[in-house]
Amino acid sequence: MALLNENYLKLKAGYLFPEIGRRVKAFCEANPEAANRLIRCGIGDVTEPLPPAVIAAMHKAVDEMRSRETFHGYGPEQGYEWLRAAIAQNDFRDRGLDVADDEIFVSDGSKCDCGSILDILGSKNRIAISDPVYPVYVDTNVMAGHTGPANDAGDYAKIVYLPCRPGNGFVPEPPKRHVDVIYLCSPNNPTGAVATRAQLEAWVKYALEHKAVILFDAAYEAYIRDESGPSPGGTPPSPHRMGRGEGEGLPANSLSLPHSIYEIPGARECAIEFRSFSKNGGFTGTRCAFTVVPKSLHAQTKAGESQPLHPLWSRRMTTKFNGVSYIVQRAAEALYSADGKAQVRALIEHYMGNAAVLRAGAKKAGLKVFGGVNAPYLWVRAPKGVTSWQAFDRILAEANVVITPGSGFGSKGEGYFRISAFNSRANAGEVAHRLQGLKW
Amino acid sequence: MALLNENYLKLKAGYLFPEIGRRVKAFCEANPEAANRLIRCGIGDVTEPLPPAVIAAMHKAVDEMRSRETFHGYGPEQGYEWLRAAIAQNDFRDRGLDVADDEIFVSDGSKCDCGSILDILGSKNRIAISDPVYPVYVDTNVMAGHTGPANDAGDYAKIVYLPCRPGNGFVPEPPKRHVDVIYLCSPNNPTGAVATRAQLEAWVKYALEHKAVILFDAAYEAYIRDESGPSPGGTPPSPHRMGRGEGEGLPANSLSLPHSIYEIPGARECAIEFRSFSKNGGFTGTRCAFTVVPKSLHAQTKAGESQPLHPLWSRRMTTKFNGVSYIVQRAAEALYSADGKAQVRALIEHYMGNAAVLRAGAKKAGLKVFGGVNAPYLWVRAPKGVTSWQAFDRILAEANVVITPGSGFGSKGEGYFRISAFNSRANAGEVAHRLQGLKW
Repeated sequence: MALLNENYLKLKAGYLFPEIGRRVKAFCEANPEAANRLIRCGIGDVTEPLPPAVIAAMHKAVDEMRSRETFHGYGPEQGYEWLRAAIAQNDFRDRGLDVADDEIFVSDGSKCDCGSILDILGSKNRIAISDPVYPVYVDTNVMAGHTGPANDAGDYAKIVYLPCRPGNGFVPEPPKRHVDVIYLCSPNNPTGAVATRAQLEAWVKYALEHKAVILFDAAYEAYIRDESGPSPGGTPPSPHRMGRGEGEGLPANSLSLPHSIYEIPGARECAIEFRSFSKNGGFTGTRCAFTVVPKSLHAQTKAGESQPLHPLWSRRMTTKFNGVSYIVQRAAEALYSADGKAQVRALIEHYMGNAAVLRAGAKKAGLKVFGGVNAPYLWVRAPKGVTSWQAFDRILAEANVVITPGSGFGSKGEGYFRISAFNSRANAGEVAHRLQGLKW
Repeated sequence: MALLNENYLKLKAGYLFPEIGRRVKAFCEANPEAANRLIRCGIGDVTEPLPPAVIAAMHKAVDEMRSRETFHGYGPEQGYEWLRAAIAQNDFRDRGLDVADDEIFVSDGSKCDCGSILDILGSKNRIAISDPVYPVYVDTNVMAGHTGPANDAGDYAKIVYLPCRPGNGFVPEPPKRHVDVIYLCSPNNPTGAVATRAQLEAWVKYALEHKAVILFDAAYEAYIRDESGPSPGGTPPSPHRMGRGEGEGLPANSLSLPHSIYEIPGARECAIEFRSFSKNGGFTGTRCAFTVVPKSLHAQTKAGESQPLHPLWSRRMTTKFNGVSYIVQRAAEALYSADGKAQVRALIEHYMGNAAVLRAGAKKAGLKVFGGVNAPYLWVRAPKGVTSWQAFDRILAEANVVITPGSGFGSKGEGYFRISAFNSRANAGEVAHRLQGLKW
């Protein structure tokens, strides 16, 4: 009989967000009145429409598909050259960072890329993952057979968890032990913490010393508002960067907040970066992202031979992927136009305005709040003795607000919950208000 | 140091189509005059614009994304319910086949699905693959470590190759030995051969006896023109089916040509089916496909415990994928409208008209031709002593036509080449003409 992949059977419960969906659905069916006033701050899904520049670009691209002369069939699996060039130029070279067009691989989502990247890595690597963090990193490693079974807290054997707590500002330090592959997410989902330049320098130093690969998820980089230090190349202020706002007053360059791992010297030799248009352009339902694989990044064979990973990823993409929809790539390209950039800026300002409203409301409610300054997520400590899922159920039942239980992001997330700032301003205000009405 | 996946290093040369692209580019740069008259019949890429129903649906969907009230963010990872329902109803239940909506998983391409399906299967299965065939089946198994190294002919150790030759009508028989996973592609890419009901019945019987899983790629089912036998459920003639044309005269029900593996009793217990909108709706650059995983299909653990594969695939899709672009799903849905169906029919008629022109031309040129009757591909035997790549280079240099060398689809494809019927009628006629001018 055909064998199945038994590693899947090690997975605890469902993937976090479908589980939230099931609980919300059950609650709404049982409480139709409450369902009408439900506000969702759970899944980190954008709520505002696509930027007008994107809408215009898509209409144009759809029209191109209506006639033989301008029709587009299969495109390059790695993405159209014009999009790869726009990305490399705007997101990297204009900021003084050395990234070539053909080091950009356009995909239909960072979730896919974060999972697929394991295809090109060996099966015997020691994997280090922040805790709490986006569950996809852990789950895809479980599926790939890189872990043992889970314990009662949900921690899987063989994974080296990197605890994120208030004491380290929710940014983990490099471990004392050796690891081969390191997942970092900054700005962090779910804690909203952002790694400083000094912190990333420590990680790059560690990776170079240990010949480890850093998988750097920068899906939320557009939310970094800090301007305290220039990029190494002395880049002009980025159009994506906003006023200093709450980041104001951060003093030294070592405390500045990099948008890209490649702002750190040496990162091209040890890091892959994941980026997405989901949270800056609002592409969660449109689907486009990209991954940067520098040609100078190597890994090794069991025999110790060093080989570049770029050809492997290119081969993976050409063999197991067929490129992103032409229409969607034109949509992504429009984000780099002058209008597109301004419209993205306005979206970020909108969501970060929500974050400020939510932070103020949660604080007034007596809750201890982290994040929400350079990221669209608030990381909130549940009152003493209240678990993450208890907080979820209470806030759903009593405030009719959907949040995300912190324990869903890892065992170190227990006792916390995440509030997403992706909403209308009115809803953000209403949630801030309702939080204050909760009697813990 | 981080380890890489050494299985990638076993892969011979580049993936077929990028290799063709490189040769064509080199030729065109060296021969700018010839480049102007180049006709591409290589990559199986559609040439005709998207159906008007699709264009209209996409404009509407783009407009929905412009306002908050109708905006769509993350959709269900498995596809929107309305699309899954349209697929299950039109492609299966209306044809008397028992497929539920939630057995349909919408994706961004069959190439992705054919590769990703290995995620949920164990690593110790014995894999059987038709030869010649779409290279993705072999290459993804090499990448997943299911093979040994390749020999000089390009055949990988451990894979059970199923030879397709004129003697078996290019449809392989079940092997005498045991295998666990079987790739079948019907209508076949590259040979254009279509498995008859009797042939598929033999495969389903084999799979049930051996508790094997059939991976059935039906990306080209819309090109089946044969109407010689009804589906088991006595379905009405499908809107995708055309006049009998060249298929006319096929006598018995056992010789009829199933559009779906699920037309064979027992297939729900042993088969996964891959379908695509690339070749019926012309979605090669729009990107949408789907996979059918019946809930009654099981595989087993090493300990011999039988488990359904449906929850594993669902988990795979929710964890490593984030759904297809909303706009693209609306585009796919439009293919099932009355207008959409008629427009798809016209596209198929167009390409099959090309196939007839090309068949006639190649025959006049004295070439032995297979396929091109129920599939958009002609499988042509190169003149004696001419290898596939020699034929490729000759046809490129002398006729300025790009075909696909048969050896790129497997060692049993050596001595053949594939001509794609995806083109304008004028180009098909011109290629038919130029083939006759070749002096072998």
